[in-house]
Amino acid sequence: MEALQMTMRGIREMDLPKPRARKGEVCLRVELCGICRTDAKILREGHRDLLLPRVLGHEVCVIDDSTQKRYAVWPGETCGRCRECQSGMENLCPQMRILGFHRDGGFAEWMTAPRRSLLPAPPKLPSDLVCLAEPLACAINALEQTQVKTGWRVLIHGGGVVGLLMGMAAKEKGATPCVIEKRPAKRKMAAGIAESLELEIDEKIPGSRFDAAINATSDVKAFKEGLGALRNGGMYGFFSGLASDPDLSRQELNEIHYRQLRLAGSYGCTRRQMTQALSMLQRNISAAGHLIFRRIIFHEIVPYLPVVESGEFFRVLARPAQKD
Amino acid sequence: MEALQMTMRGIREMDLPKPRARKGEVCLRVELCGICRTDAKILREGHRDLLLPRVLGHEVCVIDDSTQKRYAVWPGETCGRCRECQSGMENLCPQMRILGFHRDGGFAEWMTAPRRSLLPAPPKLPSDLVCLAEPLACAINALEQTQVKTGWRVLIHGGGVVGLLMGMAAKEKGATPCVIEKRPAKRKMAAGIAESLELEIDEKIPGSRFDAAINATSDVKAFKEGLGALRNGGMYGFFSGLASDPDLSRQELNEIHYRQLRLAGSYGCTRRQMTQALSMLQRNISAAGHLIFRRIIFHEIVPYLPVVESGEFFRVLARPAQKD
Repeated sequence: MEALQMTMRGIREMDLPKPRARKGEVCLRVELCGICRTDAKILREGHRDLLLPRVLGHEVCVIDDSTQKRYAVWPGETCGRCRECQSGMENLCPQMRILGFHRDGGFAEWMTAPRRSLLPAPPKLPSDLVCLAEPLACAINALEQTQVKTGWRVLIHGGGVVGLLMGMAAKEKGATPCVIEKRPAKRKMAAGIAESLELEIDEKIPGSRFDAAINATSDVKAFKEGLGALRNGGMYGFFSGLASDPDLSRQELNEIHYRQLRLAGSYGCTRRQMTQALSMLQRNISAAGHLIFRRIIFHEIVPYLPVVESGEFFRVLARPAQKD
Repeated sequence: MEALQMTMRGIREMDLPKPRARKGEVCLRVELCGICRTDAKILREGHRDLLLPRVLGHEVCVIDDSTQKRYAVWPGETCGRCRECQSGMENLCPQMRILGFHRDGGFAEWMTAPRRSLLPAPPKLPSDLVCLAEPLACAINALEQTQVKTGWRVLIHGGGVVGLLMGMAAKEKGATPCVIEKRPAKRKMAAGIAESLELEIDEKIPGSRFDAAINATSDVKAFKEGLGALRNGGMYGFFSGLASDPDLSRQELNEIHYRQLRLAGSYGCTRRQMTQALSMLQRNISAAGHLIFRRIIFHEIVPYLPVVESGEFFRVLARPAQKD
């Protein structure tokens, strides 16, 4: 089958055997797979959770050929027995194997997934948007960990796909999000979704102190700026890992102590959150549609990686060539 | 009256006029005042909240001469109207004026305090222990912010007065605290209270990952060690400001993101927490008694500051000379 495999030498188009489902798994036809910025950066930067060789891709819309049903796939495989799994934090299972990181993902005609990771796609939800369920679920997890409440003013750094999905999810929680995006072109691109959602997008942090701030960018400056913008007792959602050393001075870090701030890490998402994400997308089809930049076919992925890595465009989705 | 005043030139014994109570305030006779390590370090390091000239001392047991009643004093004076005051976070009031920092404190024969900051001392609680109500309340605040629950394993870095009071308060919450103290002499000194409370004190972090960790020391190494000792999803209580730059690498800070840890700052305490502290001390008179190292008189404070700053001993309390 057609597939893109990453090895130590890079990402290459390959003819791989169709994978075989093991016990509890299903073999699924990939209809579409989103290209996350992590997929694009991984070639240069590596990733804590990546095992090579690997077929990347974890934002998938798949079809079970035996039933013709469409699914989003929760990109985790967990032990189900540990403390984290038992307490609703399955995304933190120490034995977690992530789709497209520990096991082969969606940049291929076929992939396997545990049956319990399949989440039925709402019938009217376009497949493009099914691919957004995973990033939206991660944004929902960040808002949950940050304990965002109705009426809260929430600062979101980064007006990319995830920052804007986070804005959408914050709106649904009854909060008032404000998305900070420094690049004029990106703010312009976001005008469509911003209008649909009545979402505030600014270049600079406006007005007074925020109840919560979350980083949807790996920029260290944004991280520091967000902490500084919180009211006393405010919550910081540490959603994006930082790209470089934090370079925090004693004074800056001690503000967390003196102002009784809270910092809540978040990583990945749970099946529950991804099921919520699918319903939320169903309620916001027209707004979320603004976040799809282009559909390409698998053999265009490699030339498109720099485009994705630039962070200057919205979501690029890839599909097998056969479907042309 | 006899008083110790800090100016730009240091801390000196002075003959100051007896202070006059303003509206809503009471003039109180100081019976005893604890010397906090912050008081000792402030001379060399300064403090964010210190306004000079100042009579230091914020851990007081005072007497209202008109009624002969003893009080602990909540060391805050707040606006009572802001968002923080209204939501039970009066310790974060932006207009906060702290006893011994913004207004004159307990290293003097007399001091004034807002009437609403007076907390009646339980009749059988020795005055030495009334002076521990403030540090204990700060420890209670840290445990609350860190959301410590029954059954939790809680790592506490620092076996000084506050770390041990935090151990006591964690025990009362039904948690299992483990206090880390590197200095053998300090561990030996803590044997008495440890035995009374059945409190674990160790040199090194024992066993597996903790539900929560809190720093009762300004050591950066302890801060990093505590974060590392948490289970996935664990809570870090950022109780002590750090003495030097945190020197956190990208990898270390990103663990908060990847392992979905939480960091909860805490600073000071509220009146409610200090009232709780007085009752808790009443229930633990014999254990808490181990934390009193020595009673001195005011004019011995200056020579004792290096002793207090060394952090090698338990609480030193000072009282006016007249009472000899």
